[in-house]
Amino acid sequence: MTSKVFHHPVQIYYEDTDHSGVVYHPNFLKYFERAREHVIDANVLAKLWQEHGLGFAVYKANMTFQDGVEFAEVCDIRTTYALDGKYKTLWRQEVWRPNAQKPAVIGDIEMVCLDNQKQLKPIPDAILASLSLTP
Amino acid sequence: MTSKVFHHPVQIYYEDTDHSGVVYHPNFLKYFERAREHVIDANVLAKLWQEHGLGFAVYKANMTFQDGVEFAEVCDIRTTYALDGKYKTLWRQEVWRPNAQKPAVIGDIEMVCLDNQKQLKPIPDAILASLSLTP
Amino acid sequence: MTSKVFHHPVQIYYEDTDHSGVVYHPNFLKYFERAREHVIDANVLAKLWQEHGLGFAVYKANMTFQDGVEFAEVCDIRTTYALDGKYKTLWRQEVWRPNAQKPAVIGDIEMVCLDNQKQLKPIPDAILASLSLTP
Amino acid sequence: MTSKVFHHPVQIYYEDTDHSGVVYHPNFLKYFERAREHVIDANVLAKLWQEHGLGFAVYKANMTFQDGVEFAEVCDIRTTYALDGKYKTLWRQEVWRPNAQKPAVIGDIEMVCLDNQKQLKPIPDAILASLSLTP
Repeated sequence: MTSKVFHHPVQIYYEDTDHSGVVYHPNFLKYFERAREHVIDANVLAKLWQEHGLGFAVYKANMTFQDGVEFAEVCDIRTTYALDGKYKTLWRQEVWRPNAQKPAVIGDIEMVCLDNQKQLKPIPDAILASLSLTP
Repeated sequence: MTSKVFHHPVQIYYEDTDHSGVVYHPNFLKYFERAREHVIDANVLAKLWQEHGLGFAVYKANMTFQDGVEFAEVCDIRTTYALDGKYKTLWRQEVWRPNAQKPAVIGDIEMVCLDNQKQLKPIPDAILASLSLTP
Repeated sequence: MTSKVFHHPVQIYYEDTDHSGVVYHPNFLKYFERAREHVIDANVLAKLWQEHGLGFAVYKANMTFQDGVEFAEVCDIRTTYALDGKYKTLWRQEVWRPNAQKPAVIGDIEMVCLDNQKQLKPIPDAILASLSLTP
Repeated sequence: MTSKVFHHPVQIYYEDTDHSGVVYHPNFLKYFERAREHVIDANVLAKLWQEHGLGFAVYKANMTFQDGVEFAEVCDIRTTYALDGKYKTLWRQEVWRPNAQKPAVIGDIEMVCLDNQKQLKPIPDAILASLSLTP
């Protein structure tokens, strides 16, 4: 079961662009992470790390770059997610420019949980609860 | 004459921190620029660049780092500015952590205008107007 | 026909890591780009952009993150590539930690050429020559 | 007593530039840190952090930006340093473009040592030794 669509705005600053005039492509992975942190709640993530040594890590990221994004634009990051077994969450995330007919960037992201020894762990209840997911 | 204080919130994401556990120090210059772009209006800057080949550039930056800033915090970037002659604007910018008694970071920034040949130009009227400054 | 393996060293600095103690995942896309610029020659790219308004852009990137990379490590970025028709080059790029048995990160990257109106163009001869590719 | 001049090369990649066509100004602080890590030895820093919880932190940075730096250039980062009492080291760092008559960027950086509670500590012997400094 896939979640509803979450919206997160990202304004494009100097830091985001490169000398070709558009956003430097690795930065879209940053916007996706920012958006996920608003979906999950960064404080839940911070607590999980400090108290349980558990982190939420990207395992796979498949990105398609369909359009350039320019300085001063405010983009809409659209996020849905689903649980896939005990260990994986799947995220579809898109970057939409203002008034666009299709996403500028599409990402399919697999997230897993790792402890501070980098061992795979089941998605913790705190994250499932924050995401309203039922295992 | 110094402007009123402008406030701009910045949330600290994974991308902002380093392995010492706090925000990586060059990133504070990014937050200061983001805050300035909200004071001036990024669209005014974009237009100035596209139509007149004029950019607003940092000439000097004096930074003092007084406290570490941590993941998931939402900081308040406080900005004031003043005009200094025809060519320079002076910006005092500070990073305030939640509930802090003093700024975590203080920056004194001198901004100038350069054309696309990197030649110094008087601060353009579009920026003076955006900043409500009288030359 | 796939190229030989190119090696490019990347040292991990503070700027590369995040508060979880390892390299922040979007940065691996940066290392891949740095490695490609050494394979192609950044000056060829710079000239192509300045004189012909042509850029070499990432169209797709499929990334798998298998291991964390730590501060102060010097990694080996291993790159091979092949031409796929007139419009596409395919790049397999890997991040190898010192003494590792498998890559920490694997990327499959599709690169295309765009003009400054963001229109798709055949891979220019200057790049084919730099890559010793025969169309 | 000021150290001899250390040289560290930095190549400018896409990631370094912004849409104005030159290096984004906060990135110069990154290059200065990279250069310092080669002067001190990043492995000494990594060990100090892992075994003693001690970090080497920027307390002040005074930057002057005199010239823009462009894509594909290989700059020379020139570094000298001196000890100032038990708690501070002072670093003069400059960015030189190829064939330049003057530095593009000048930085005066004060570095201190902090423990993992962010308390000021005397510069540790491991760093003094690495820098060939006598207290």
